[in-house]
Amino acid sequence: MDFPAELKRLVARVETGLDRHVPPASARPARLHAAMRYSLEAGGKRLRPVMVLAAADLCGAPPDAALPAAAAVECLHTYSLIHDDLPCMDNDDLRRGRPTAHRAFDEATALLAGDALLTHAFALLATAYADRPALAADLVRELADAAGSARLIGGQMADLLAEKQADATAADLDFIHLNKTAAMIEASLVLGALVGGAATARVEALRTAGRHLGLAFQIVDDVLDATADSATLGKTAGKDAKADKTTYVKLHGLDASRRIAADHTARAREALAAAGGDTTFLLALASAMADRRT
Amino acid sequence: MDFPAELKRLVARVETGLDRHVPPASARPARLHAAMRYSLEAGGKRLRPVMVLAAADLCGAPPDAALPAAAAVECLHTYSLIHDDLPCMDNDDLRRGRPTAHRAFDEATALLAGDALLTHAFALLATAYADRPALAADLVRELADAAGSARLIGGQMADLLAEKQADATAADLDFIHLNKTAAMIEASLVLGALVGGAATARVEALRTAGRHLGLAFQIVDDVLDATADSATLGKTAGKDAKADKTTYVKLHGLDASRRIAADHTARAREALAAAGGDTTFLLALASAMADRRT
Repeated sequence: MDFPAELKRLVARVETGLDRHVPPASARPARLHAAMRYSLEAGGKRLRPVMVLAAADLCGAPPDAALPAAAAVECLHTYSLIHDDLPCMDNDDLRRGRPTAHRAFDEATALLAGDALLTHAFALLATAYADRPALAADLVRELADAAGSARLIGGQMADLLAEKQADATAADLDFIHLNKTAAMIEASLVLGALVGGAATARVEALRTAGRHLGLAFQIVDDVLDATADSATLGKTAGKDAKADKTTYVKLHGLDASRRIAADHTARAREALAAAGGDTTFLLALASAMADRRT
Repeated sequence: MDFPAELKRLVARVETGLDRHVPPASARPARLHAAMRYSLEAGGKRLRPVMVLAAADLCGAPPDAALPAAAAVECLHTYSLIHDDLPCMDNDDLRRGRPTAHRAFDEATALLAGDALLTHAFALLATAYADRPALAADLVRELADAAGSARLIGGQMADLLAEKQADATAADLDFIHLNKTAAMIEASLVLGALVGGAATARVEALRTAGRHLGLAFQIVDDVLDATADSATLGKTAGKDAKADKTTYVKLHGLDASRRIAADHTARAREALAAAGGDTTFLLALASAMADRRT
């Protein structure tokens, strides 16, 4: 398999899904929809929606069946970035190498664009899968649980609280990574598997793979923040150390952090093997996520 | 029918629904869940969830079947208030006579509590109605559409834009009222009707009633802002005139505004009659909404 070509093909399908399943920038009110599109089109890695499509392909979903689910996941991820960048949160000026939404528009518009992308994710799932209502309800429940107060948002909150306390523990940090980062990566594989009609054991194997991939991803993020430069990352580097933030690197050191990330990647590969089928692409993606430079 | 007693009974059921179907304040992370509960328990009128329950009763839903839908609607409404009160939006210090969420906690916590309540609304619908998946999907779609970028959030955005332009027209104002206020009141009656398994014609009659009730409600809001005092309202009065905001009162004057509100109430009563069944409570609620002093 030619991994870069296959990744490119999946990213192109994600773009098609977003184009089809998100209102155009001209929809009324235009400023709101322009801000939604601006943030969606900032050109991230599309990692999560690619995982939705790859899991759906693995589980035998018909072509294009998972495009709405992939678009919903990217809408949800983009909302979380917009809100995370706001002045009252991380107060970031740069995201993916471009001005953040509240810099390009204004704070109120960014707030509402985030709210609208979050809401749209659920509208899209309920509408696009209306002819398979049990699937629609399952997809909404999985995504809402992953994004909810016990997981994604809970992880964000715990992250904010940890920044203010010098004595955050390894257990605190694991809670943050598990929920702030891994929840949505788990959900991405699970949503794809559900669209593909996978049996429970296979769905759960993919959930486990997603959890370890997510944990590895966040540890690599901490490592990159400590070692890369802003131009390469497309966002402000060295922020964690500057803020004296509790990270894997601060708690465990660089070498151990790399080792723990590699261990999570290995466990993700085992779970993918347990899921069965042709996991060539997902295994290559796991390696690419572990070895990434940005 | 003893309207105040029946209203009190329905409000008590709403409180039961919220207690059962929203995570406790102690759930991890506690600060996030405490902020969610603080805003939910600020003791509003519970107008929207009461309408969910009344419509469900009207359409013959079993007792308690609509409690999760009512709780979801109140979670969604409360999120919209929390975000609307934020410094980058209306920058309000008081809501329902108590400090707003970002005053009682902090801005980041209020932002995340709003996000979490919005997300929870959809998780709750998908989970509580999992044994009736077609209903679950319909409820999610109705609520997400009402709350989305073309309706609730679109209305908020248009409202913000109108504040900055001196020449907002009556058509602009109608767009704002229809979406910022009426969308969620429509959705409340529609969700109740769906839980009750109502036929399409009845659902649509209730949707029309909700639209007119919502429009009347917002015009009365504009009138009260111009005529009542902060202590009575439990929020800052006279804000619209101070901000030179385009309102029904500014565009049409007090007397015409009252006349238009009364006309919408009359049309809501007609639609309720068309919905059929024992609409005594909903008719009394329409009168109470039209005649309210806060």
